[in-house]
Amino acid sequence: MKSKAQFYHAGCPVCISAEKSVAQSLDPARFDVEIVHLGEQGQRVGEAEQRGVQSVPALVLDGQVFHINHGADLAALK
Amino acid sequence: MKSKAQFYHAGCPVCISAEKSVAQSLDPARFDVEIVHLGEQGQRVGEAEQRGVQSVPALVLDGQVFHINHGADLAALK
Repeated sequence: MKSKAQFYHAGCPVCISAEKSVAQSLDPARFDVEIVHLGEQGQRVGEAEQRGVQSVPALVLDGQVFHINHGADLAALK
Repeated sequence: MKSKAQFYHAGCPVCISAEKSVAQSLDPARFDVEIVHLGEQGQRVGEAEQRGVQSVPALVLDGQVFHINHGADLAALK
């Protein structure tokens, strides 16, 4: 069964680079990766926060949050 | 052709978690992931540094460095 993974970002250059490289490099046999642009989907900032996301870009795999480099603090997106 | 990817870490809990989740989730059809433990292979700290790694855990994909969460600064491993 595939796991769902979320990649939260905000369109910043650091985010786009991480999306193209990391998020799109996950094993497609094991993960369905949902890309969430918090700049455009502000209503999902709360969801990201609840899951432990503190900054973007961030990848959530099996409930674990991995902050990748640093584009923007979540607070800046509210 | 497969790309070579390196995952640099230092054995810290944050590193191990990122290794198990992120590094081992990369598409095996596209990447050969080399795991480098800089705590045990101190002679490779210079190589990591030259590639732009500033802290561990870090993933290098196609020459791009992605720092994941934060376990330790590279300077602490010298």
